[in-house]
Amino acid sequence: MCGIFGIEGHEEAANLSYYGLYALQHRGQESAGVLSWDGGRLHVERGMGHVRDVFDETTLARLRGFRSVGHTRYSTSGNSVIANAQPVVVKTCMGPLGIVHNGNLVNAAEIRERLESEGSIFQTTSDTEVILHLMARNPRRNIVESLMVALSQVRGAYSLLLLSDSCLIAARDPHGFRPLLMGRVQGKPCFASESCAFDLLEAKEERELGLGEVVVARGEEVESYQLREAEDPARCLFEQVYFARPDSNVFGDVVSEARLRMGARLAREAPADADMVVPVPDSGLFAALGYSRESGLPFEFGLIRNHYIGRTFIQPKQSIRDFGVKVKLNAVRGLLEGRRVVLVDDSIVRGTTSRKIVRMVREAGAAEVHMRIPSPPTRWPCHYGIDTPDRDELIAANQTVEEIRQHIDADSLDYLSLDGILNCANGPADSYCTACWTGEYRVGVGSGGRDQEEMFPIRMESED
Amino acid sequence: MCGIFGIEGHEEAANLSYYGLYALQHRGQESAGVLSWDGGRLHVERGMGHVRDVFDETTLARLRGFRSVGHTRYSTSGNSVIANAQPVVVKTCMGPLGIVHNGNLVNAAEIRERLESEGSIFQTTSDTEVILHLMARNPRRNIVESLMVALSQVRGAYSLLLLSDSCLIAARDPHGFRPLLMGRVQGKPCFASESCAFDLLEAKEERELGLGEVVVARGEEVESYQLREAEDPARCLFEQVYFARPDSNVFGDVVSEARLRMGARLAREAPADADMVVPVPDSGLFAALGYSRESGLPFEFGLIRNHYIGRTFIQPKQSIRDFGVKVKLNAVRGLLEGRRVVLVDDSIVRGTTSRKIVRMVREAGAAEVHMRIPSPPTRWPCHYGIDTPDRDELIAANQTVEEIRQHIDADSLDYLSLDGILNCANGPADSYCTACWTGEYRVGVGSGGRDQEEMFPIRMESED
Amino acid sequence: MCGIFGIEGHEEAANLSYYGLYALQHRGQESAGVLSWDGGRLHVERGMGHVRDVFDETTLARLRGFRSVGHTRYSTSGNSVIANAQPVVVKTCMGPLGIVHNGNLVNAAEIRERLESEGSIFQTTSDTEVILHLMARNPRRNIVESLMVALSQVRGAYSLLLLSDSCLIAARDPHGFRPLLMGRVQGKPCFASESCAFDLLEAKEERELGLGEVVVARGEEVESYQLREAEDPARCLFEQVYFARPDSNVFGDVVSEARLRMGARLAREAPADADMVVPVPDSGLFAALGYSRESGLPFEFGLIRNHYIGRTFIQPKQSIRDFGVKVKLNAVRGLLEGRRVVLVDDSIVRGTTSRKIVRMVREAGAAEVHMRIPSPPTRWPCHYGIDTPDRDELIAANQTVEEIRQHIDADSLDYLSLDGILNCANGPADSYCTACWTGEYRVGVGSGGRDQEEMFPIRMESED
Amino acid sequence: MCGIFGIEGHEEAANLSYYGLYALQHRGQESAGVLSWDGGRLHVERGMGHVRDVFDETTLARLRGFRSVGHTRYSTSGNSVIANAQPVVVKTCMGPLGIVHNGNLVNAAEIRERLESEGSIFQTTSDTEVILHLMARNPRRNIVESLMVALSQVRGAYSLLLLSDSCLIAARDPHGFRPLLMGRVQGKPCFASESCAFDLLEAKEERELGLGEVVVARGEEVESYQLREAEDPARCLFEQVYFARPDSNVFGDVVSEARLRMGARLAREAPADADMVVPVPDSGLFAALGYSRESGLPFEFGLIRNHYIGRTFIQPKQSIRDFGVKVKLNAVRGLLEGRRVVLVDDSIVRGTTSRKIVRMVREAGAAEVHMRIPSPPTRWPCHYGIDTPDRDELIAANQTVEEIRQHIDADSLDYLSLDGILNCANGPADSYCTACWTGEYRVGVGSGGRDQEEMFPIRMESED
Repeated sequence: MCGIFGIEGHEEAANLSYYGLYALQHRGQESAGVLSWDGGRLHVERGMGHVRDVFDETTLARLRGFRSVGHTRYSTSGNSVIANAQPVVVKTCMGPLGIVHNGNLVNAAEIRERLESEGSIFQTTSDTEVILHLMARNPRRNIVESLMVALSQVRGAYSLLLLSDSCLIAARDPHGFRPLLMGRVQGKPCFASESCAFDLLEAKEERELGLGEVVVARGEEVESYQLREAEDPARCLFEQVYFARPDSNVFGDVVSEARLRMGARLAREAPADADMVVPVPDSGLFAALGYSRESGLPFEFGLIRNHYIGRTFIQPKQSIRDFGVKVKLNAVRGLLEGRRVVLVDDSIVRGTTSRKIVRMVREAGAAEVHMRIPSPPTRWPCHYGIDTPDRDELIAANQTVEEIRQHIDADSLDYLSLDGILNCANGPADSYCTACWTGEYRVGVGSGGRDQEEMFPIRMESED
Repeated sequence: MCGIFGIEGHEEAANLSYYGLYALQHRGQESAGVLSWDGGRLHVERGMGHVRDVFDETTLARLRGFRSVGHTRYSTSGNSVIANAQPVVVKTCMGPLGIVHNGNLVNAAEIRERLESEGSIFQTTSDTEVILHLMARNPRRNIVESLMVALSQVRGAYSLLLLSDSCLIAARDPHGFRPLLMGRVQGKPCFASESCAFDLLEAKEERELGLGEVVVARGEEVESYQLREAEDPARCLFEQVYFARPDSNVFGDVVSEARLRMGARLAREAPADADMVVPVPDSGLFAALGYSRESGLPFEFGLIRNHYIGRTFIQPKQSIRDFGVKVKLNAVRGLLEGRRVVLVDDSIVRGTTSRKIVRMVREAGAAEVHMRIPSPPTRWPCHYGIDTPDRDELIAANQTVEEIRQHIDADSLDYLSLDGILNCANGPADSYCTACWTGEYRVGVGSGGRDQEEMFPIRMESED
Repeated sequence: MCGIFGIEGHEEAANLSYYGLYALQHRGQESAGVLSWDGGRLHVERGMGHVRDVFDETTLARLRGFRSVGHTRYSTSGNSVIANAQPVVVKTCMGPLGIVHNGNLVNAAEIRERLESEGSIFQTTSDTEVILHLMARNPRRNIVESLMVALSQVRGAYSLLLLSDSCLIAARDPHGFRPLLMGRVQGKPCFASESCAFDLLEAKEERELGLGEVVVARGEEVESYQLREAEDPARCLFEQVYFARPDSNVFGDVVSEARLRMGARLAREAPADADMVVPVPDSGLFAALGYSRESGLPFEFGLIRNHYIGRTFIQPKQSIRDFGVKVKLNAVRGLLEGRRVVLVDDSIVRGTTSRKIVRMVREAGAAEVHMRIPSPPTRWPCHYGIDTPDRDELIAANQTVEEIRQHIDADSLDYLSLDGILNCANGPADSYCTACWTGEYRVGVGSGGRDQEEMFPIRMESED
Repeated sequence: MCGIFGIEGHEEAANLSYYGLYALQHRGQESAGVLSWDGGRLHVERGMGHVRDVFDETTLARLRGFRSVGHTRYSTSGNSVIANAQPVVVKTCMGPLGIVHNGNLVNAAEIRERLESEGSIFQTTSDTEVILHLMARNPRRNIVESLMVALSQVRGAYSLLLLSDSCLIAARDPHGFRPLLMGRVQGKPCFASESCAFDLLEAKEERELGLGEVVVARGEEVESYQLREAEDPARCLFEQVYFARPDSNVFGDVVSEARLRMGARLAREAPADADMVVPVPDSGLFAALGYSRESGLPFEFGLIRNHYIGRTFIQPKQSIRDFGVKVKLNAVRGLLEGRRVVLVDDSIVRGTTSRKIVRMVREAGAAEVHMRIPSPPTRWPCHYGIDTPDRDELIAANQTVEEIRQHIDADSLDYLSLDGILNCANGPADSYCTACWTGEYRVGVGSGGRDQEEMFPIRMESED
């Protein structure tokens, strides 16, 4: 998962990208990067870690220019290296190009193999670079045409921004898996994954990009192109469930309200005989509040989150049970003791964390723990941009709900139904991608990012 | 404000201090330090910033030993320099000593001046160092006696831990301004500012230190001494209102429950004709929930906090209004639009931030904004360990409630009464320090830390 | 200018590269890099600055494997950026490849333009990358064939090492501009720019690579190929004059002895009526000693060099005349006062430094200063790998010897003649490149590196 | 060993200290520090390593003010920690004070013990701090009086600079063990360990400080005080032999000329039947040249030094014999093969390095190796500021010259006689300290620095 931001024609372009990334930090904490164009040169700065760690006054001052894009990248297990940090920048016969991308291309490995056999050389393991190579192989006087030729050859999920020496281009795949919004800061066109970036910049949100739409911004002018006929929409509902910030609008819906509806619906589908509703912070907050209101059970902050955790944490030699969870969450004994608790978390992936949280709540004195999940069981990995484990690690792919309940040691466990969650969304039921719950992959699965990594056996410099 | 932790006789002593500081990080983010004793040497590691930034595997591995203390320091404006980071360590004729301290000594400047005129040399501007010098001037074979002689000369608020080559000593001033708890980890004595540190370590909480109590721990043995007759208790109620973590027990009360009571009482004292209750996160969460329950108005997360903010933030050249607040908080338009909002924040200091938040809520579409504060107006600076501005900067010291309401542009503004808040505490009304609301300073005000800083015109190395 | 080292089949391969670079540090202090192959992955570590600054135990430990190449790069004015640090590593359809290169290709810009127009994407401004792209465009099952196809298309000076997943390849251009030696460490094949790297490793020197020779090393086996018919040799005599370390053998000659001969010959060609011979350290040491012996004038260390200078030096605000030279050299008044001095430096490029040194020697009391240069006037820029300024900055390209003498304010100035220096070399006179003295460029001049830099308007991350 | 520099009343004071330290870098590479006073505050910056590594534009810009002192510290084995880096700065009742010190106090441990028993607290293990404590215990309105009271209590070697808020003071012990010079930069008083610092700054050297002289500089005014009657001079002859830079004047003598005389005398005292004289660079250069001239044997650069070595060097796993020496020095086979060589090095301490160098020269083909040392055998440790090992590690304290010859495997070995070296100095024979050769310690030996270190069992932060 990633967050992207871009701005055209603004004298403080790189600074705005930096602020935009600050607002989109929840979409990725592995690496951050900003690229700018000053009329003569591209300037790029990337680093591992949070936006706050990568940029300082000196690095931002280097990023001169009036056109800029930025990127935050989600932490994945395998290939957490600086070489894969975006923006990716290259020089082609059409001039310098930079790209940032949220999503995943399912046919990247095939294209890459073909291009390599024709003599292309790749810098990264990222599928994003494939688009630049396709462009370089199909140069056009008008750069947007070259991009559209390239995009006609890729399949998958992409919301992307392309920076050239002449313009800033935004593009969204024909299924619209990932969000991408257009707005204006002091009249200058800007683009962001979520509206919370616009709020910070006091940007005026104009609209979501259409399915398969390509928007070219030059100064204050914008032109719209259509990639090919828009295809069936396949918006990612997990953005609503977990990924997006609750104060954002995503796919035309306020995320916090969607979550309240999911929680309320869950209370109707799966009531519990309990004394209180406790969210697993922060992702369960709104669904728990919705559950509380619908059920009439009081809402309690029974788990407190420590927000000061860093990227690495030194483990105790002598084991403290469930230490990794304890350092992030603490159960409030005074509130929980002797009470029957409904615990609301956004989803269950491997089941490991849920098991630890349930145990922590019990050890703080809870009499009963009823786990409620405001989304269906996650049974299939995402191939469209969310980093999920393989099927054999997804607990719901391998166990029944009752088995999962036993595994996490809850007194009861219920998920929101597929019908239920589609009903809570504000669009038609068939306009959402439900692959992680149903296995119905709209554009296939491809060979995925991990294979590409094996194709690229080069370890670049250490991070620092 | 500061957080302190100490552990005696544990083979993983420095690691436990590090974990303890992680749990106490909310009590200070300016600097962090850990000291350990390995039987032959003291080892110390300090740095500016969060615990996560100061320590890594290499630095922790250096901190060998079985006795350790740690400290996190709150960010103050003036003297944010590494030289003032604690633990303070010195070598005296009684051997090496290290100290960590939460609180403020009101007669430190006088003592310092006297000691300097007698030939003492100080390393820091911190009042903490005064105690070590008093000890060095009054050596005793039994180190606890030397400490007690020193403490008999200082006046003010202190919860402190002293590490020597023979023992770990905990001491709390006779008024008990600041909290200090004693517990056991795997049978080994440990001490912490708040119980949340014990929860993380699975330590068994034993008890709060008594007023004027001095506890000496050697291996698993502990001995208790009484400094002088305990004086009138003067516990800091602001710990309950704002400072302590809601999952901690402080002064024998669960912080989150105290805050719920304050919110509920505020709803009775100052009801509002409104549609919803919105907390200013995170400090207003529990009081807002209490207000919501008592008033029957729905509780809404109308403000979303960005938890990824770093210590420094590059400001935009071109002004975005209220940028400093916007980068931390965002108002959820979808929830607030057209609604009458009760906004609950823990306190109002200068009024600047409240004014910006009210404006942000209005710009997100709120029809009315009713500000409610679950504590009395802050009219006097704290001289006992909380970093508050001078009287001329405290808005409630200079303006009436109505003037403040106009300044922050709220439709109404109400504070919890002094009687009200004392009623919400679980101890007798006269057992709390109310100086910041009433100006009744139990042990005088002294010359404060800022004067000392002027007394020490030395700027040490830059932080990095 | 650059230094390269490579080793095949040795269990401590990267460490040996690191030691080799230490010995070759005089050939480039701008950046350093080491690449290794462990049978499954390439590992690369590069950085700006000296070998001592780029590598530590952690980075070296990352560089696992049994095959390795290393590179040190000379500091040039314009494009001192990490993106240009070598080794260059890429993934092609023939697997991962890494290259290090000493020299300069004169037709790199043309090839690059052609490849870009055909869709290739370049990572760096370095001409070295061109070779990898030519290989990627001409894949062969046997990688040495692909390299030979690529090399058949480039023109210029190159001594290079190519690391693949199957072998280590060394290649030298058909004119043999730059040195490249083959040896064995504990039986394993190794390659280095100069023999001093072999001395450090206790490697057995086997031989210099032939003109146009390509050597493939796999384990302990080596095979030799011939690129095309060897062309007229054009060895760079400046290696002997200035570049190589005096303890190295270069082109079959001991550098220190060649310099002694040049100094002696200079004493015969251009005697001086003086009291002593003083070298400009360190490059003038041997020639000055040769001059002293031949002339019978005593050799004196009249200039002392400060070896502790860093890469950057903060200039005084208030001008100290000739500060940049003074910080590196100091004249010994006690030795120079009232004496007539023969000053020997390897060459005069812009004349600025010589002017400052002469002034410094005069200010230390010298009665007369006679400058003697053991090489002919440098009148033409090098296009074959030594970083020299353009013609308009070369003082000897624009002024007569007498004008130069006046400019540097010497009492007399003489250079070694072209015949003289060719006579001091141990090979036939027509086997050396004399382009910098005569303008006779054996393989033309091409468009040079600077044009390529303009072709690549991308500024990567800051160095640190 | 250390280098010190100070400047008074100059608008670029800290920059000049930085340049001064650059010139004095050979006197210490362990740590570097600069202190400045801007009229209101002291500013200090210290770090481990070379001057080039410790300071950059940012740190120098912090060091505002018109009065400054700087210090470079020699690398010793045990206590290489930042806490001991100078300048030492403290606040006393006389205001802020900073000190830099070259030398060693033999009664520091006794004074320290006494002061600690009276309640003083020390920050460092350095004997320098003792002087500040003595001052703090004996405050005077006129700070120079307080310093003179303090110095009357210490015994040992010191050339020191004290910076206060009112003046800069230079002091030299009554025996004058270490050098200290006074000069003027643009009319402003400045002080340095050696004249090479003045050369770099174009400072006018005025004179050496007298024995026991204390000079106070305020603006352009200087006043001189006499500590007590000057005692017998005891100048350190090792400054001439090894420590000082050859272009410096030390004790009124040009170092390079003294070394030439020592080499010449050695040639007369200990001739050798050989073909050439080879210096061990860089410390043996001048003595070898003197030997060559006197003996008529040709001078040859048969050993080449690598000047790019860093502070740490990663050792090969698989042993290369004498690697530590090989990485610093390389023998030039072409010059040495089949020749009988006189090798000249400044002294032999443990014998380990000499043994390796002799072996390296033999392996490069030398037929015979005759080692010649232009100073007497080092039989006693220095207690006056040079870091020498204990007697049991000094080879000449435990073995005869013949045994040493066998140990280092030379064909012959000779030292300069005591009479010989005293004869080469330009002062009376009894005006030099000869303790390291004779064991005649003029002011006793005291308990030394190592004991103090044991007295201070505190390990401060790691270096970075």
